[in-house]
Amino acid sequence: MTKLNWGMIGGGEGSQIGPAHRLGAQADGHFTFAAGALDIDADKGRAYAQSLGVAADRAYGNWQEMLDGEKGREDRIDLVTVATPNSTHYEITKAFLEAGFNVLCEKPMTMTVEEGEDIVRTAEATGRICAVNYCYSAYPMVRHMRHMVASGELGAIRCVVANFSHGHHADAGDADNPRVRWRYDPAMAGVSGQMADCGIHALNLATFITGDEVTTLSADFASTIPSRVLEDDAMVNFRLSKGTIGRLWTSTIAIGRMHGLDIQVFGEKGGVRWHSEQPGQVWYTRLNGRTEIIEKGEGGISEMAAHVSRVPIAHPEGFPLAVANIYVDLAAAIRARRDGTPLDPAADHFPKAEAGLRSMASVYATVASAKADGAWVDARPPMYR
Amino acid sequence: MTKLNWGMIGGGEGSQIGPAHRLGAQADGHFTFAAGALDIDADKGRAYAQSLGVAADRAYGNWQEMLDGEKGREDRIDLVTVATPNSTHYEITKAFLEAGFNVLCEKPMTMTVEEGEDIVRTAEATGRICAVNYCYSAYPMVRHMRHMVASGELGAIRCVVANFSHGHHADAGDADNPRVRWRYDPAMAGVSGQMADCGIHALNLATFITGDEVTTLSADFASTIPSRVLEDDAMVNFRLSKGTIGRLWTSTIAIGRMHGLDIQVFGEKGGVRWHSEQPGQVWYTRLNGRTEIIEKGEGGISEMAAHVSRVPIAHPEGFPLAVANIYVDLAAAIRARRDGTPLDPAADHFPKAEAGLRSMASVYATVASAKADGAWVDARPPMYR
Amino acid sequence: MTKLNWGMIGGGEGSQIGPAHRLGAQADGHFTFAAGALDIDADKGRAYAQSLGVAADRAYGNWQEMLDGEKGREDRIDLVTVATPNSTHYEITKAFLEAGFNVLCEKPMTMTVEEGEDIVRTAEATGRICAVNYCYSAYPMVRHMRHMVASGELGAIRCVVANFSHGHHADAGDADNPRVRWRYDPAMAGVSGQMADCGIHALNLATFITGDEVTTLSADFASTIPSRVLEDDAMVNFRLSKGTIGRLWTSTIAIGRMHGLDIQVFGEKGGVRWHSEQPGQVWYTRLNGRTEIIEKGEGGISEMAAHVSRVPIAHPEGFPLAVANIYVDLAAAIRARRDGTPLDPAADHFPKAEAGLRSMASVYATVASAKADGAWVDARPPMYR
Amino acid sequence: MTKLNWGMIGGGEGSQIGPAHRLGAQADGHFTFAAGALDIDADKGRAYAQSLGVAADRAYGNWQEMLDGEKGREDRIDLVTVATPNSTHYEITKAFLEAGFNVLCEKPMTMTVEEGEDIVRTAEATGRICAVNYCYSAYPMVRHMRHMVASGELGAIRCVVANFSHGHHADAGDADNPRVRWRYDPAMAGVSGQMADCGIHALNLATFITGDEVTTLSADFASTIPSRVLEDDAMVNFRLSKGTIGRLWTSTIAIGRMHGLDIQVFGEKGGVRWHSEQPGQVWYTRLNGRTEIIEKGEGGISEMAAHVSRVPIAHPEGFPLAVANIYVDLAAAIRARRDGTPLDPAADHFPKAEAGLRSMASVYATVASAKADGAWVDARPPMYR
Ligand SMILES: NC(=O)c1ccc[n+]([C@@H]2O[C@H](COP(=O)([O-])OP(=O)(O)OC[C@H]3O[C@@H](n4cnc5c(N)ncnc54)[C@H](O)[C@@H]3O)[C@@H](O)[C@H]2O)c1
Ligand SMILES: NC(=O)c1ccc[n+]([C@@H]2O[C@H](COP(=O)([O-])OP(=O)(O)OC[C@H]3O[C@@H](n4cnc5c(N)ncnc54)[C@H](O)[C@@H]3O)[C@@H](O)[C@H]2O)c1
Ligand SMILES: NC(=O)c1ccc[n+]([C@@H]2O[C@H](COP(=O)([O-])OP(=O)(O)OC[C@H]3O[C@@H](n4cnc5c(N)ncnc54)[C@H](O)[C@@H]3O)[C@@H](O)[C@H]2O)c1
Ligand SMILES: NC(=O)c1ccc[n+]([C@@H]2O[C@H](COP(=O)([O-])OP(=O)(O)OC[C@H]3O[C@@H](n4cnc5c(N)ncnc54)[C@H](O)[C@@H]3O)[C@@H](O)[C@H]2O)c1
Repeated sequence: MTKLNWGMIGGGEGSQIGPAHRLGAQADGHFTFAAGALDIDADKGRAYAQSLGVAADRAYGNWQEMLDGEKGREDRIDLVTVATPNSTHYEITKAFLEAGFNVLCEKPMTMTVEEGEDIVRTAEATGRICAVNYCYSAYPMVRHMRHMVASGELGAIRCVVANFSHGHHADAGDADNPRVRWRYDPAMAGVSGQMADCGIHALNLATFITGDEVTTLSADFASTIPSRVLEDDAMVNFRLSKGTIGRLWTSTIAIGRMHGLDIQVFGEKGGVRWHSEQPGQVWYTRLNGRTEIIEKGEGGISEMAAHVSRVPIAHPEGFPLAVANIYVDLAAAIRARRDGTPLDPAADHFPKAEAGLRSMASVYATVASAKADGAWVDARPPMYR
Repeated sequence: MTKLNWGMIGGGEGSQIGPAHRLGAQADGHFTFAAGALDIDADKGRAYAQSLGVAADRAYGNWQEMLDGEKGREDRIDLVTVATPNSTHYEITKAFLEAGFNVLCEKPMTMTVEEGEDIVRTAEATGRICAVNYCYSAYPMVRHMRHMVASGELGAIRCVVANFSHGHHADAGDADNPRVRWRYDPAMAGVSGQMADCGIHALNLATFITGDEVTTLSADFASTIPSRVLEDDAMVNFRLSKGTIGRLWTSTIAIGRMHGLDIQVFGEKGGVRWHSEQPGQVWYTRLNGRTEIIEKGEGGISEMAAHVSRVPIAHPEGFPLAVANIYVDLAAAIRARRDGTPLDPAADHFPKAEAGLRSMASVYATVASAKADGAWVDARPPMYR
Repeated sequence: MTKLNWGMIGGGEGSQIGPAHRLGAQADGHFTFAAGALDIDADKGRAYAQSLGVAADRAYGNWQEMLDGEKGREDRIDLVTVATPNSTHYEITKAFLEAGFNVLCEKPMTMTVEEGEDIVRTAEATGRICAVNYCYSAYPMVRHMRHMVASGELGAIRCVVANFSHGHHADAGDADNPRVRWRYDPAMAGVSGQMADCGIHALNLATFITGDEVTTLSADFASTIPSRVLEDDAMVNFRLSKGTIGRLWTSTIAIGRMHGLDIQVFGEKGGVRWHSEQPGQVWYTRLNGRTEIIEKGEGGISEMAAHVSRVPIAHPEGFPLAVANIYVDLAAAIRARRDGTPLDPAADHFPKAEAGLRSMASVYATVASAKADGAWVDARPPMYR
Repeated sequence: MTKLNWGMIGGGEGSQIGPAHRLGAQADGHFTFAAGALDIDADKGRAYAQSLGVAADRAYGNWQEMLDGEKGREDRIDLVTVATPNSTHYEITKAFLEAGFNVLCEKPMTMTVEEGEDIVRTAEATGRICAVNYCYSAYPMVRHMRHMVASGELGAIRCVVANFSHGHHADAGDADNPRVRWRYDPAMAGVSGQMADCGIHALNLATFITGDEVTTLSADFASTIPSRVLEDDAMVNFRLSKGTIGRLWTSTIAIGRMHGLDIQVFGEKGGVRWHSEQPGQVWYTRLNGRTEIIEKGEGGISEMAAHVSRVPIAHPEGFPLAVANIYVDLAAAIRARRDGTPLDPAADHFPKAEAGLRSMASVYATVASAKADGAWVDARPPMYR
C-alpha cells in the first residue's frame, strides 16, 4: 500500500471541524496530509499547515493558489476536503471537481438546490468522487441498521423518528454574539438555521438507514428568541417513497441536551433505536419479542458494519482515541527531551515505567494474599518500600 | 512541526491491540509509521508492514533485526511500541531502551516484579522514556477526575471502588480453546489470570485518579471453571498510602458485561463516577448536593483534560473515528477507480453528492412548508422528480 | 379521621385499570371500598365485588342499581370511580353528579366536546367534584416540574416536547384480534385512536406542567396497518396561550418502546426532562449550567411534590408496593392456615424467621472476620450447622 | 373475602418506615388497620392511630397494653407488624408469637444470633407465622430471577455480586447529629453499623435469588469518619453452600449513590442484573447471546413474579401509587367541602373536569387538522374561547 495524498481547505487553527478531519484522514494511515489552505487569513493558514507537517511549498494562502499549485504536480493530492463556511462550498467544490480532483465536502454541500444539482452533474461529467461529510452515517452501528433494513430483518418500514436537538444556542443574552448570530441571519446563513445546520444530519440518517428518499414533507418552524429571523426549533413530518412515515425534531434551545442526535426505525417485524451519545449499541426489538442490545464488535455483525469497526468486542468504540492520547503525550515528551525544552505539564500524565512496576507488584501481592486466604500483604515493589 | 518516526513490534494482522496503536499513533499526525516487526511469522510480518505503507527495508522479520536495522540509521525511529505477548515485553523493552530508543510497552510491562524494577532502573540509567499503555488513564474525563482530586475539590479521598468485569471467557465449553486456555495456565500466563489482564487497568486507574499508591491489600481469587488453574474472578481490598479504602472486583465470567470498567471515587466533599462505556461524562455529586453531569468539552474543564480532547462540546468523544470511516471508504474508492479494480461493496456506503443534494432540497422544502403554515410540499430535487 | 366510602363502576376481574384504582383508593387508608358495579356481566360483577370485601347488598349488578341503592343511604359513598369503557363515561358521570356524588372519571372523560362541556357545567351546577384520572400528573416529580414553571425557575417556557409511544399494537397479524381492533374502529372508539387513548395523557402533562392551555394545533395522522381506519401514529404541533411551542408524538407501533411517556420542557433559564419509566428523577439543566438530577425525596423539594411522596430519599418511589407484596403473601398464608387450605406455592416466597436468623448470623460473621483481618469464618447459625 | 385485621407497633408520625407499612398493608384491601401502638410517646401514638382511622379503644399507648387488649378480643388482629427500633424487635416479636399472633418483624429481626434462634424456635413451637420485612425480595422481577435460578435457566451459579451503597451519611459535619450518630455507636446499634442496616438486604437478596445459604465469609470493614466506631463501609467475600462465589459492597459514604441496591447473578448458562432504582426490568444475557431486557408484565413471566405484579405491561411498576395520589387529593378535597374547611393548596393539583374537556377538545382538533392536511385549527372548547 502506498499512501494517498490529501489536502484540506478551511479547518484552520481553532476551527470546530478541522481537527476531526485531520484525525479522520490520518488515523488509518491511508492518507498523507500533503497540502492545505487552512485559513481565511493566508499567513495564519500557511503557518498552521506547516506546524502540522505540511511542506512549505504546499502550505497555500488560499484555495485558488492551492488549485493552481496542485493541478500541475506529479504527486498532486488524491482528495481534497472542503471545510470552509457553507457559502464557499459550491464554488470550491466545483472548481476542484472540474480540475479533476476528488472532493469531500462539508455539509451542507451547497446553499441552493440549483447549485446542488450542478455539483451532482459536474461530478458525473468529470467522473470524480464528490462525497459529503454526513459522518454519523459512518458509525458502525448505523451502518448495521442500514443492513438490517436492507436485508428485510425489520420488514417494511412503517415509521422513522429522528431528532437532533441541543441547547447550545439557548442563551438569549448570547444571541447577539457574532459567533451565534450569523446562524439565524438569512444574509449569512441562507434560507434556514437549525434545519440546515443539524436537522439535515438527522434527515440524512433517516434516508441512509432506510435506503429510501424523502418525497413530501410538512414543517413547523419557530424562532424562540425574538431577535432571530431563522428557525431555532423545527418539527418536520415527512413521507419516504415506500410509504414510511417520518418525524423529525431539531432544536438549538433544548437546554440540557448535549448532542441529542438519535434515531428510531419501526418496521413490521421489529424496531431499532440508536443514540449518538452511546454509539456502540443498537437497541433492537423483534415483534412480540424482548429488547436485545446489539453490541459493536459482536460476532456475526454485518459486513458493512464490520468494515468500519476496528475494535474487538471487549473495547468501547472510541477506545483508539484514548490510545492516541498516549501518543500525543509521548510526542510532546520526546520533542521536549530532544529539543531540551520544558514539557508542558498538561502532557505529563502518561503512564510511565513506575506505573507498570507498581501494578505488577500489586498483582503479585494479590496472588500471595489469595493463596494465604486473604491475608493482608505489602503491595509495594521492594525498591519503593 | 516535523513528524517523528514510529515503529511497532507485534500487532500483526488480526491481532487485538495492533489496530488501536496504529490509529492512535497516526491520528494526530505526530508520527510516521516508519518501521515494524509485526508478526511472529517473519514473512507475514514483513508483508503486512508493507501493506500498511512501511518501506520494504524497514519491514523487519523480527525484533532483533529491527533493533539492528534501526540502531544505525540517521532517521531511526523516535519511539517503538511493544505489542507482543506478555512474556516477551521485558526482553524487548530492555533491549530497545539500552540501545537508546524510547519505548511504549503494552501492559503488563513485565512478568515479575524483579523485571519491573530492572526496567525502571534501565529507563533511568539510559534517560529514555519508557511508557506503559494504561490507555484508560488517557480519556479526557479520567484526567479531569485526577485534576479534581489533585485540586482538593473532593476533599480527602475516603474510598475508591473500581471494577473491570466482562463475560467473554464464561463459556466452559470454550475453556479448552487455545485462544482462551493459555490465559488461565500458569505456564503461559504467569502467576495471575484476570487480575494481571484486566484488574491491573482498574487498579492503575484507582492510583492514577487519586494520585496515590497501593500500600497493602487482601485478595480473594476464584477459578469458576474447573479446568482453570488461574483466577477468572477476583476481589481485592486495598489501602492507599493516604488512608483511602479500596475495593476492586474483576471477572471474566460476568456474562452480559461487555466492557465493565468503571470507577467511583468518594471523598469528604464529593463523589465522582465514570464508566468506560460512556466515557464522555463524569457524574459528580457534591456533599449534600445534587448529582451533576460533567460533560466532555464543557467550558472551564481542567487543562489536563482539555489537552487530550479535540472535540467541541456538541460532539461525542469518539466522533473523529466516524469521520475517519468516511476516509477509509474514500481511500478504497479512490484506489479502486485509480487501479480499475472493483470497489468492495462494504466500502460503498459513504455519502455522495446525491445525498448532499437531496438533503438540500429537503431543507428548502421545509422552509417553503413552514412559510405556508405546514402545507405539504414536494421535497425532491427537480432532477429526481 | 373517619374513613370515606368509595365505590367503583367497571374495573371488573381481569380489567386493565381496575386494580390500580383499588390499590390507589385503599393504599393511604382514606377510603373504604364500600360499593361496586364492577362488570358488564351483573353476576360476575356482584361476585367479584364480594370477593374483594364489598358487602352483598352493595355489590350491584349495574350502575343504575348502584345509583338507586346508594342515593338513599345514610352511609352513601363519598366518591365513585367510573372505570368502564369510554362510551359510557358521559352518561354514568352525569347521572352520579346530578344525584350529588363526587366522581373520578377515567379518561377520556367523554366522547365529544359537547358532552365534555355538559359535564363541566353539571359539576359546576351541582357543586360536586368531577375529577379525571390523568394520573401521570400525580407523580411527585411531575408536580415538582409544575412548581418549577410556576415559580419562574425556568423563565418563560419556549418549547415543550411530549411523547407517549409504545409498540403494543404493532402486530399486523393481531390487528383483527377484537381486543385490539375496536381501538381503530370509529364505530367503537369514536373519532380518534391513539391520540385519544395515549396522546391525551402527554398533552395533559404538557398543559399541567406549564400551567397553560393549548390554543391551536396542527396534526399528522397515520394508520400504518392497512386494516385500520383510525390513527396508530400521530404527530401534533401545538401552541400554548403564552406562546410556547409544542411537539407531541404518539404511536402504538413503536416496537421496543414499553411505556414511552416522557416530557421535556425548555424555558429561557433552564430545561427539565422526565421519563415515566424512571419517575423518581427530573433532569434539570440551568442555562449555561450542568445537568443536575433532582431526586424524589431530596431536601427542599416543593410542597406540591412533597405532599404526594411518602418515601424518604433513600428509597425508590414505588417501594411501598414491594412492601405491599409481602402483605399479599401474608394474607394468603394467614388465610390458608386459618382455613386449613393449602397455600398457593406462588405466595410462599415471603421472608421467614429463618431468613432473619441467617442474615443476623452473617452479620456477626462479618464483624468477627473484619476484627480478625479478614479471616474466613463460618457464617451459619449454630442451629443450622 | 372477609378482611383480616392488622395492627402495628412503631411507625409513628414522622417515622421512616411506618408509611410504607400502612400503604403496603391496605393497598390490596386484604387488611383493615384495626389496632396500633405507634409511638414511644403513648399519647402521640394514641392520637396518631386515631387520626389514621383506628378505633379509640384499639389505639394503644404501648405494646404491652396492645398485647393485653388484643389477646382477649373476638376480632383480635390476625397480624401484627413490629416497626420499632431494632433493640426492641426480639422482645415484642417473641411476646406476640407466644400469645398466638402472626408477626411481620422489621429487619434486623434480632440483635444477636441467640435471640434469632429463639425466635425461630418460638415460631415453630407456636405454629405462628413470623415473617421479616426483606421487602426487596418481593419485587416481581426479583422473584422472577429466583425463578430463573430455580428452573435451571442460568445453570449452576458461579458468582453473585450484590451492592447496597448510598451517600446519606457522608457528612463528617453531621456525624454528631444524634439521628446519625447512634448508627455507628455500639451501645445503641449493636455489633455492626452499615452491614446490619443495609448490607443485610443485599445479602438476603443474594440468598433469596440463588435459593442458597451463606456458609463462610471474609470481611473488610472501615470507619471512614474518625468519630465512628462501627463501620460505614464494608466489603464481604462469601461462599454459598453450592459453591457460588459472593461479593458484597455496602457503604454509607458513597456520595452520589441514592439507593444503590443492585445485584448481579452469573451462572454457567447466563447472567442477570437488577437495580432497585429501575425495578421493573431484568437485564438477562444468555451465554454467547445478546443482552435481553425482561420487562415487568411481559407475557409468560413466571408464576411467582406474576403473583405480585398487578400492572399490565404498558404501565410502570409503581404506577398504582400515582393513581393513589389522585385519591389522596380527592380525600382532602371531599373532606374540605364536607367540613367547610379550606383545601390545602398542595392538594389542589388533581385533574378536574376542565382538564378532561380541554384534552377532548384538543383531540377533536387533531382529527380535524389531520383531515385537513395539517391545517392549523383552534383547539379550545367553545365555552373557553
Ligand atoms: N459534519 C459535521 O458534523 C460538521 C460539524 C461541524 C461543522 N461542519 C461544517 O464544517 C464547515 C466548517 O465549520 P466550522 O464549525 O469548522 O467553522 P469554523 O468557523 O469553526 O472554522 C472555519 C475555518 O475555515 C477557515 N476559512 C474560512 N473561509 C476560508 C476560505 N475562504 N479559505 C480557507 N479557509 C477558510 C477559517 O479561517 C476557519 O479556520 C461548515 O460548513 C459546517 O457546516 C460539519
Ligand atoms: N492496553 C490494553 O487495553 C490492551 C488490550 C489488549 C491487549 N493488550 C496487550 O497487548 C499485547 C498483545 O495482545 P493482543 O491481544 O493484541 O495479542 P494477539 O495475540 O491478538 O496479537 C499478538 C501479535 O503479536 C505478534 N507477535 C507475537 N510474538 C511476536 C514476536 N516475538 N515478535 C513480533 N511479533 C510477535 C503476533 O503475530 C500477533 O500479531 C498483550 O501484552 C496484551 O496484554 C493491551
Ligand atoms: N388513566 C390511565 O392511565 C388508564 C389506563 C388504562 C385504561 N384507562 C381507561 O379506563 C377505562 C377502562 O379501561 P380498561 O383498559 O380497564 O378496560 P377493560 O376492558 O380491561 O375493562 C373494562 C371493565 O369494565 C367492565 N364494564 C364494561 N361495561 C360496564 C358497565 N356498563 N358497567 C359496569 N362495568 C362495565 C368490564 O366488565 C370490565 O371489567 C377506559 O376508559 C380506559 O381509557 C385509563
Ligand atoms: N425493610 C426496610 O427496608 C427498612 C427501611 C427502614 C427502616 N427499617 C427498619 O424499621 C425499623 C424502624 O425504623 P425507622 O427508620 O422507621 O425508625 P424511626 O426512628 O424513623 O421510627 C421509629 C418509630 O417507632 C416508634 N417507637 C419507638 N419505640 C417504640 C416502642 N417501644 N413502642 C412503640 N413505638 C415505638 C417511634 O416513636 C417512631 O415512630 C427499624 O428496625 C429499621 O431497621 C426497615
